[in-house]
Amino acid sequence: MSDDINEQRRKVLKVTGAISAAAMITSPFHVFATEPNRRIPSQGYAAFDESGILKPWTFERRPVGDHDILIETKFASICHSDIHQEKGHWGKQQYPQVPGHEIVGMVAAVGKNVTKFKVGDRAGVGCMCGNHYHKHDTYEEQYSPDTLFTYGYPDTRSPSGITQGGYSNNIVVEENFAVHIPENVSFQEAVPLLCAGITTYSPLMRADIKKGMKVGVAGIGGLGHLAVKIAVSKGCDVYAFTTSPSKVKDIESFGATAVVVNDLSKLQEYSGQMDYVISTIPYDFNVAAYAATVKPYGTFTQVGMPIRSEVTMNALYLAFSRVNFNASLIGGMKETQEVVNYCADNKVLPQIEMIQADQINQAWENVVDKKARYRYVIDASTF
Amino acid sequence: MSDDINEQRRKVLKVTGAISAAAMITSPFHVFATEPNRRIPSQGYAAFDESGILKPWTFERRPVGDHDILIETKFASICHSDIHQEKGHWGKQQYPQVPGHEIVGMVAAVGKNVTKFKVGDRAGVGCMCGNHYHKHDTYEEQYSPDTLFTYGYPDTRSPSGITQGGYSNNIVVEENFAVHIPENVSFQEAVPLLCAGITTYSPLMRADIKKGMKVGVAGIGGLGHLAVKIAVSKGCDVYAFTTSPSKVKDIESFGATAVVVNDLSKLQEYSGQMDYVISTIPYDFNVAAYAATVKPYGTFTQVGMPIRSEVTMNALYLAFSRVNFNASLIGGMKETQEVVNYCADNKVLPQIEMIQADQINQAWENVVDKKARYRYVIDASTF
Ligand SMILES: NC(=O)c1ccc[n+]([C@@H]2O[C@H](COP(=O)([O-])OP(=O)(O)OC[C@H]3O[C@@H](n4cnc5c(N)ncnc54)[C@H](OP(=O)(O)O)[C@@H]3O)[C@@H](O)[C@H]2O)c1
Ligand SMILES: NC(=O)c1ccc[n+]([C@@H]2O[C@H](COP(=O)([O-])OP(=O)(O)OC[C@H]3O[C@@H](n4cnc5c(N)ncnc54)[C@H](OP(=O)(O)O)[C@@H]3O)[C@@H](O)[C@H]2O)c1
Ligand SMILES: [Zn+2]
Ligand SMILES: [Zn+2]
Repeated sequence: MSDDINEQRRKVLKVTGAISAAAMITSPFHVFATEPNRRIPSQGYAAFDESGILKPWTFERRPVGDHDILIETKFASICHSDIHQEKGHWGKQQYPQVPGHEIVGMVAAVGKNVTKFKVGDRAGVGCMCGNHYHKHDTYEEQYSPDTLFTYGYPDTRSPSGITQGGYSNNIVVEENFAVHIPENVSFQEAVPLLCAGITTYSPLMRADIKKGMKVGVAGIGGLGHLAVKIAVSKGCDVYAFTTSPSKVKDIESFGATAVVVNDLSKLQEYSGQMDYVISTIPYDFNVAAYAATVKPYGTFTQVGMPIRSEVTMNALYLAFSRVNFNASLIGGMKETQEVVNYCADNKVLPQIEMIQADQINQAWENVVDKKARYRYVIDASTF
Repeated sequence: MSDDINEQRRKVLKVTGAISAAAMITSPFHVFATEPNRRIPSQGYAAFDESGILKPWTFERRPVGDHDILIETKFASICHSDIHQEKGHWGKQQYPQVPGHEIVGMVAAVGKNVTKFKVGDRAGVGCMCGNHYHKHDTYEEQYSPDTLFTYGYPDTRSPSGITQGGYSNNIVVEENFAVHIPENVSFQEAVPLLCAGITTYSPLMRADIKKGMKVGVAGIGGLGHLAVKIAVSKGCDVYAFTTSPSKVKDIESFGATAVVVNDLSKLQEYSGQMDYVISTIPYDFNVAAYAATVKPYGTFTQVGMPIRSEVTMNALYLAFSRVNFNASLIGGMKETQEVVNYCADNKVLPQIEMIQADQINQAWENVVDKKARYRYVIDASTF
């Protein structure tokens, strides 16, 4: 890394309030990581049962392998998926389990085969943390059976037997499953991009959204508000479908053309008008009623993942709309780097609220109660 | 009509066992139809409650209006939709209600503005029987809010207040909602094309199926066996997914490349292989497991309409398959004429079993028990 860039970085880091690269390199984790096969001590917040209540937990991570990087976490943010998974909405879990798959921090150590990162780099991790083959030869790792997800996923290398996520002060991931966080975005504003950003960006790109297209977004939470901003940044006319009247002003300020505080009769006014709709709604809902807002033969993408991931839809009404319904899971690693860069360059950034570790339980309640505005970001120094 | 064509028709009618045009013109219904505003007496089988048991019923139809034709029914066939609707699977019904929307017969009278049909023509009626404006200016009448469906649909012109369907000895429909039955197909073999044929043909055409494509068909009943035959006739490699081992030989004889007697593990062998899949399964099922047989970014069409028309699907698995799920409702009138002509010309004909009116209740039970092989056709002279 040239001194020039280092100088620039230091300035940005100062502005963004992140710890300086220099301080980082002296991270205590570095010591552990340099001893071969030395497990990494970690401190975080874990779920211990399906109650949805997290408590502090001290645990160990696997040693930094040849293809791994160790990241000293600076911030982790709260995704509704964390809540679903720890509460057992998607299936039985092994506990203790540390959630969190929106993670940014500084690289504190690198394995001997690592080429993409070096100590001191700003790095981010999303929903995936590796695979069993230390490679990622597809564009869509999220759909590969070899991929390990960031928490709660069986991983024989982990002392707890499962991957442990980002609500903690460090994480070990394979280098192919980390992205670079550019200098022109703060850590805090970058962190929600690692899941909420990519999960909305990826299907929006696949839908080939363009200037002037009418794009609907249903459910304006962490994912939804980023979907609005991304679509607005691409020049689309964005229609936001929300159940929260108190969000209308915010959503307008994000650049939405219209905010529809929906009851079904209001939805009907938009029948057949949208070029594309994305839904982030996290509980089962009247899919066909929302899908009816799409133009005949258009596409409706569900990214919200309700209980058991199940959505029920009325096939007859769906037929009437001639809608193609699909679902989408995050996005690939290449596209994750792309969305981070895109959002940094275009200032398409989440509206965040900073919290400390001991506020996580309250924050989770707020998310479920639709009180989050719009992403809670946890300061990892408080773990 | 030229004498030549009449001569030809008489021959064909003789061969196909249908009543001759000459006999038809002397139909007793003709008498009623010629008196203005004279209601048409009709005799059929109706449901009287949600039991699914039909009984003979004598009723009246509306007079033949200026845009209407009166058809003396020759055959009506049994669609699973008849059973769903009369049993209240899709919502509360008004009874008595005569089901049946696969109907063929001879035109016995025409209204004064009718141009497309004349007395003696061979005509067919499907799921739609008119609209309130005596016109059909869309290609997709089935999705128009103005369209009247053939039975159980509110219709102020009908003495019973609702449309009454094809399990009866005649029917009055607007001429725009009838199709011509060509001479090169028997009435009995044509009749299932009016719903089962068009409902499978329409989405298969939209999927742009072509020689060499792998097309999956799930649920090999009335609709499904026609879907197999249509896709085979277009040169596709057809994979049939059935729950009935006893159907395997039949389905092979229809030209299927492979018959998969499915349990979920067998389905997995076909994961990501089909260019397109159509499902006729009439009850809620594991949509995502079947959809997983489609190639990434391919399409899966549901035409089966379960209880409340609801299908439940796992959005996560659907995401993994990158499948576009849609539903399809019959097809437009132009396309209905097209499928009838196509099937007649290419000998893509249903495998039928003839029954009398008093066998309808048993036949319904057999359909539900998957014992139909593959469409029951009722001889309308037995009503
Ligand atoms: N597919 C993927 O790869 C992927 C990735 C990340 C997250 N997810 C899933 O996406 C969903 C949203 O995540 P998120 O973090 O954005 O959650 P979030 O911040 O809670 O936002 C969801 C929004 O949906 C609306 N909503 C909530 N409950 C609702 C209900 N019962 N009925 C109708 N609308 C409701 C609310 O918006 P309004 O106030 O505007 O109505 C809420 O803010 C979750 O199911 C999560 O698991 C999926
Ligand atoms: N969308 C439309 O416009 C439209 C038009 C007409 C009909 N429909 C609907 O399409 C569906 C099929 O109609 P149809 O007349 O072809 O019915 P059908 O003759 O009974 O055929 C349906 C086939 O699906 C399979 N099946 C039945 N019950 C099942 C279950 N519980 N689980 C899994 N598979 C099952 C059976 O095939 P195997 O023995 O091969 O497993 C059965 O033969 C009905 O729901 C009907 O209402 C829709
Ligand atoms: Zn997430
Ligand atoms: Zn039918």
